[in-house]
Amino acid sequence: MTQGPSADPGVIDLLGLLAYAELGSFFRLADDAGLAPTLRAKGQLAALAATEQAHYQALRDRLEELGADPEEAMAPFVAPLDAWQERTEPQSWLESLVKTYVGDGIAGDFYARVAGLADDETRVLVEGVLAETGRAEFVAETVRGALGEDPKLSGRLSLWARRLVGEALSQAQAVAVQRPELAKLLAGGDRGSEPSSGVGDLAAVSRMFASLTEGHSGRLRAMGLAD
Amino acid sequence: MTQGPSADPGVIDLLGLLAYAELGSFFRLADDAGLAPTLRAKGQLAALAATEQAHYQALRDRLEELGADPEEAMAPFVAPLDAWQERTEPQSWLESLVKTYVGDGIAGDFYARVAGLADDETRVLVEGVLAETGRAEFVAETVRGALGEDPKLSGRLSLWARRLVGEALSQAQAVAVQRPELAKLLAGGDRGSEPSSGVGDLAAVSRMFASLTEGHSGRLRAMGLAD
Repeated sequence: MTQGPSADPGVIDLLGLLAYAELGSFFRLADDAGLAPTLRAKGQLAALAATEQAHYQALRDRLEELGADPEEAMAPFVAPLDAWQERTEPQSWLESLVKTYVGDGIAGDFYARVAGLADDETRVLVEGVLAETGRAEFVAETVRGALGEDPKLSGRLSLWARRLVGEALSQAQAVAVQRPELAKLLAGGDRGSEPSSGVGDLAAVSRMFASLTEGHSGRLRAMGLAD
Repeated sequence: MTQGPSADPGVIDLLGLLAYAELGSFFRLADDAGLAPTLRAKGQLAALAATEQAHYQALRDRLEELGADPEEAMAPFVAPLDAWQERTEPQSWLESLVKTYVGDGIAGDFYARVAGLADDETRVLVEGVLAETGRAEFVAETVRGALGEDPKLSGRLSLWARRLVGEALSQAQAVAVQRPELAKLLAGGDRGSEPSSGVGDLAAVSRMFASLTEGHSGRLRAMGLAD
């Protein structure tokens, strides 16, 4: 429990954000299992949820190692992440699969992007969390299969995917404004040699999030959905 | 994936029952977290749920090893276990804690009792599942603390605990009638040298379940509740 030089407030924010995001994913996956059509699919969702719980635990442990109170670190992100979950409540099993795929995809790109900005130990942890998220193929295949059987679903699910991203970007912007230390950390990867400034950081965070939607288009195509 | 001599239909039933019970506990714990008063408690429930998922996975894997279809093996127990969950839906955080403690306790006693009746590999697996359920202390302490603050809760929670057991025994009886091979296996520990018969097995299963309530009284006392 040594509080080393790595206990940058931006890193604590980042770990708190990721930890609560993982806890939220855990509860969402467990909850969505109610929509699962089979006992087998319910079991698969439980396994995915358990993986998220393990990530949450690792991030929480890291916060404690850095001398931070994990619940305090998570607190600022409860409202925006809960808001995203509430505004994007899936109404069907397919919507819940698309949400898992789109949400995991953006989260994964985000983790990969920010991993390089934190201290080495945090980077290794975040990369580990990222590497274990290997369900993309299963979800993309299931959605493609459903679209093959009923191509009319494509329009509605494409709109749904667009809404998921729109709501995520909107919450991310709110977080960036409220957590300047985090915005500064996230902007670090984009700013280059430019000096740090509040407004400059916000613009850099915007550019970073905009670039995350590039991977999103590829994921939509993988599911057979329109951009 | 060899179907050895251990693939007794009663053992397959037992593993199917335990697997679906663990999956159900997983979903219940994840669901009850909505009642948890703090972010810390939510995280703790998520950890408990993840442990149940790991048990489910181990039992499911064992079913596959025995050459059984895990979902088929679980299917007969979906209705009775779901019925128990539905009839005992906690209305408060304390009720959900008491349910966890009472339910885990009975399940633990049941596992310990039946472990000796199955083949060696199944026994080791079931004992492992049992050994990991170490949250009793935490729950009992939390309930005692709440009763210390508001002793009037004791009557209501005692009734609640009684209802949990009553509903469990009722579902267990229904299962014993519907699954004669399982009843035969469970009766094995009680029957001794008596020859196996349908009605004799049911009586033996009744005696076994009745004896499970002995541990239950001790658990009620540990929580500060009346028997």
